[in-house]
Amino acid sequence: MKNLAFDKIKCKSGFWRFYKDLNRNDIVKNVYNRFKETGRFEALKCNWREGDANKPHIFWDSDVVKWIEGVAYILEEAPCAELETLVDEMIDDIAENQSKDGYFNSYYLAIDPSKRFTDRGCHELYCLGHMIEAAVAYSKATGKDKLLDVTLKYIDLVYRVFKEEQSAAFITPGHEEIELALLKLYEYRGNKKHLELARFFIDMRGNNSVEKPENCIQTNKPVRALSEAVGHSVRACYLYTAMAMLAKADKDEELKEACQRLFSDITKKKMSITGGIGTDHDGEQFSYAYDIPNMDTYNETCAAISLTMFAGAMQELEVNSNYGDIIERVLYNGFISGVSLDGAKFFYANPLEIDRKKYERSTYQVDCQRVAVFFCSCCPPNVTRMLASIMRYAYSTDDNKIYCNQFASSEARFIINGKAATLTQTTDYPSNGKITFAYSGEPTTLFVRIPGWCVEYKGKTENGYASFQVSDGATITVDLPMEIHFIEANPYVQDNSGRYAVQRGPLVYCMEEIDNGENLRDVTLIENSDVRIASESGIPAPIIYIEAERRLPSTELYRIKDSERNKFTARLIPYFSFANRTPSDMIVWTMVK
Amino acid sequence: MKNLAFDKIKCKSGFWRFYKDLNRNDIVKNVYNRFKETGRFEALKCNWREGDANKPHIFWDSDVVKWIEGVAYILEEAPCAELETLVDEMIDDIAENQSKDGYFNSYYLAIDPSKRFTDRGCHELYCLGHMIEAAVAYSKATGKDKLLDVTLKYIDLVYRVFKEEQSAAFITPGHEEIELALLKLYEYRGNKKHLELARFFIDMRGNNSVEKPENCIQTNKPVRALSEAVGHSVRACYLYTAMAMLAKADKDEELKEACQRLFSDITKKKMSITGGIGTDHDGEQFSYAYDIPNMDTYNETCAAISLTMFAGAMQELEVNSNYGDIIERVLYNGFISGVSLDGAKFFYANPLEIDRKKYERSTYQVDCQRVAVFFCSCCPPNVTRMLASIMRYAYSTDDNKIYCNQFASSEARFIINGKAATLTQTTDYPSNGKITFAYSGEPTTLFVRIPGWCVEYKGKTENGYASFQVSDGATITVDLPMEIHFIEANPYVQDNSGRYAVQRGPLVYCMEEIDNGENLRDVTLIENSDVRIASESGIPAPIIYIEAERRLPSTELYRIKDSERNKFTARLIPYFSFANRTPSDMIVWTMVK
Repeated sequence: MKNLAFDKIKCKSGFWRFYKDLNRNDIVKNVYNRFKETGRFEALKCNWREGDANKPHIFWDSDVVKWIEGVAYILEEAPCAELETLVDEMIDDIAENQSKDGYFNSYYLAIDPSKRFTDRGCHELYCLGHMIEAAVAYSKATGKDKLLDVTLKYIDLVYRVFKEEQSAAFITPGHEEIELALLKLYEYRGNKKHLELARFFIDMRGNNSVEKPENCIQTNKPVRALSEAVGHSVRACYLYTAMAMLAKADKDEELKEACQRLFSDITKKKMSITGGIGTDHDGEQFSYAYDIPNMDTYNETCAAISLTMFAGAMQELEVNSNYGDIIERVLYNGFISGVSLDGAKFFYANPLEIDRKKYERSTYQVDCQRVAVFFCSCCPPNVTRMLASIMRYAYSTDDNKIYCNQFASSEARFIINGKAATLTQTTDYPSNGKITFAYSGEPTTLFVRIPGWCVEYKGKTENGYASFQVSDGATITVDLPMEIHFIEANPYVQDNSGRYAVQRGPLVYCMEEIDNGENLRDVTLIENSDVRIASESGIPAPIIYIEAERRLPSTELYRIKDSERNKFTARLIPYFSFANRTPSDMIVWTMVK
Repeated sequence: MKNLAFDKIKCKSGFWRFYKDLNRNDIVKNVYNRFKETGRFEALKCNWREGDANKPHIFWDSDVVKWIEGVAYILEEAPCAELETLVDEMIDDIAENQSKDGYFNSYYLAIDPSKRFTDRGCHELYCLGHMIEAAVAYSKATGKDKLLDVTLKYIDLVYRVFKEEQSAAFITPGHEEIELALLKLYEYRGNKKHLELARFFIDMRGNNSVEKPENCIQTNKPVRALSEAVGHSVRACYLYTAMAMLAKADKDEELKEACQRLFSDITKKKMSITGGIGTDHDGEQFSYAYDIPNMDTYNETCAAISLTMFAGAMQELEVNSNYGDIIERVLYNGFISGVSLDGAKFFYANPLEIDRKKYERSTYQVDCQRVAVFFCSCCPPNVTRMLASIMRYAYSTDDNKIYCNQFASSEARFIINGKAATLTQTTDYPSNGKITFAYSGEPTTLFVRIPGWCVEYKGKTENGYASFQVSDGATITVDLPMEIHFIEANPYVQDNSGRYAVQRGPLVYCMEEIDNGENLRDVTLIENSDVRIASESGIPAPIIYIEAERRLPSTELYRIKDSERNKFTARLIPYFSFANRTPSDMIVWTMVK
């Protein structure tokens, strides 16, 4: 299986077109402005001196190059001279300040070049990883290889210092990322050296006598022995993504099985219903199995992205609709909740419940509203690059067969039996589940993912896909009944016992105080009542109105069980759209009767 | 109204006799041994020097004298030469090391006498307060006034320094306690100076230009303007108790009304169903209204005691069974949960839910099991002195009328119309609600509190009391139907929405994992099922068996609402008896259908 590159797919309208336009018109510029204000671009000049404003930070290079990567994907869809000029200037700065031996890191070059490669926790290889991704993306999008050349030279240095000489103070990076980046580069350029270096970092992890075993950075075991996702969730999924890519490149069954175990552990035991992972604020980590709190969960936006990447890589290893299901769950919920509907503000943590009074007393600084900029601002440029390339998850191909994994009105170009083919998808997804495919090209089989949520679909499926023989001019319509489902969590998820989430299609819903009054935990939805699905302006997905009730106010603190309730019509909005108005309490897991 | 002194009441058998025996035979000795090991008694010699073991602490004197107070109450019930000798030795040490001007504090005398009365947070007046209570108790119990004389001399110093000269670095104590102690002393000795000093500390609190307003220590407002209980809950209720005592002594209606507002705020908005208060770990404080968590609640044992004291003082201000109701709720639940059934171990915090896995990752160090000794060991001696004098809450009198506020098989002595009278109470309370009174003496009216929980009682009540005319030889039986009630919390208690507590009579029940299996939050009790009430050895109150169900195990993390359940018989034990076996999860608020 091979995911179809996003540049082969033109997203034409609908949900993701809304966000892709928002990205191009607003998000990418907002991120640029915040980064410029905070000195992140200026830092590339490597001339900061004590006493200057905006002291560079060890991870700033990664912020900048992730933004460049996002711009590259935007340019690949349609040119933009203004953005391209900005990027070229940044690349000039990087190239100009690259050390003779290939090293580049704006923090170390400005602050203390003698300290390079001495502190595993200082993100140098992480920054290089992101630079590789940006360089590949920019080369593909513009044909300009200046950043790629800088990067290749830096990789040669890293290859020598880490793999050949082993002369750095550490063996594998403290924050994984370079592994998957090297594998992407290998796919792009085919240089075995890059595959070797990726394999080296993956194989040595948790598997050498220099570095001590640490759960938080996944050095607890050699990678092939891993069964449980532990530690910092973004680092973990970046590593697991690379493991899956390497398993494919090397046809490494043992590594593939480790990836399957890890994917299962995450998605069957450690994932919010929104696809959020890394529930533990402390260290942004995976918690123990089934510890999936709502109010105190972390669920970093970057972690949602990293899980999507992991699932995307798994999708290339195995025909199983579960990977597309998880990608869909993450993208429509816990990923896209990370950005405001106006593209100006971002969530780092994505809670499933907000009680502002509790938050005021919380140990953790939880934001009830998205903010324009963070000190640690990994998420905003990650949102940009994900949105600009999100169509990469739509299709995959295998031996001239087409797999449709995600739904969006779009036009995709394939090579089937050596000849150009196109597949047009027309849908209002996720407003409803009707998807029409129009095909032109050589005869093939079209496999369409039947989402796990669609228990009402009655057709035959194999590995979760319905299959259709298509030939030139064929039109296929798949109609996925999109009922409202009340979802329960595994009994071991203590926080959700007696509570249910409302899901319709891929969208998880929530209630906000601003619509439903205070005291949201006391609301009970009435299961068999009139339900209204409504399209409303400002939110690119339907609103649900459903009958509900809550207890009457009382002056007693404790009283004998009483059933008096007030009825009202609850307004449920898609989870991703919460916190886009005035600050408000919010809840996903509610009572149902 | 005047509460009948506990020495007029002999507790003969039943629930409180069990605990009073445990106190005399075990608790008081266990506390002594732990205090001795940690150097608390040795510290009274005031000769600790740098390099010695067991450096004294600012609050150690209070621990010691609270223990002495408890011993005094024990001696008042029956002599014990061994305990009396130990106390006499301690008192000798205190007297010997008292400064010429009357000052005594083992910490400052040993560490730095020049620093006395310079730091409001250092508990000197708090320690003196407890010393006053101990001195009064020991004088009453043994007729020995040595400690009382030391204390009176120290009070004279405090009166001069704080009230007359105002030469200390602060005006009112950082930890209230001395106010109520001075009022007790005033009741015992009748010296107006002690009343004046108590009134001074109360009136000046939050009402002077030297000390800044602080919620945490109740200096936010002048006491008569208080409406909301804030800050450290033990300090708060010690202050409120003193305010109620002063309101009575001074017939101060404004102060009485402030007390009524505070009592209402606590018991209608800030109290666990177990009577626990001070739910916020951070600063051991009251939280905002209706923030009554279960897992993370604090509910210090001392706070339960302080609320009992406040209610006891309010009971003398006003004929209202609500005070007896609250005392009963606290004593049978959140107070007595503070000590293990073998009298060897203590809870500082009394949670209403234990999830050991969550606790392992908790920000707060919560004990899932009682421990033998704490660094801050205020609770164990507070338990001792409360148990030894607990009968003080049983009766009150007013104008030759008798009010029975609490139930226990006992013999009480009154003076009715100037003549001795006795009232014998025979009951298995709280195993059942049948209470028989046998009276001998001049004709009077006996008022019996009809507990708020007893909604099934059909007789006439006034201010919550049923009244009976009794004359010599009269026998009255009150039978309080003791049904199992499922209790709901106010809708604003977010943590308990959709959950219910089981209460029978005054006892709140809980489930432990050891009896009911893991995953307690997923248990649903079946309301109209067979229930069995059983007496079992080792626990001085009944066990409840009730039908229940829980969801079947599932390998799915999320699935469509499903109703398949496994039935089982749940074993509910009285809340106070939790954590007396192997470490176990526990829950009070459960689902009911």
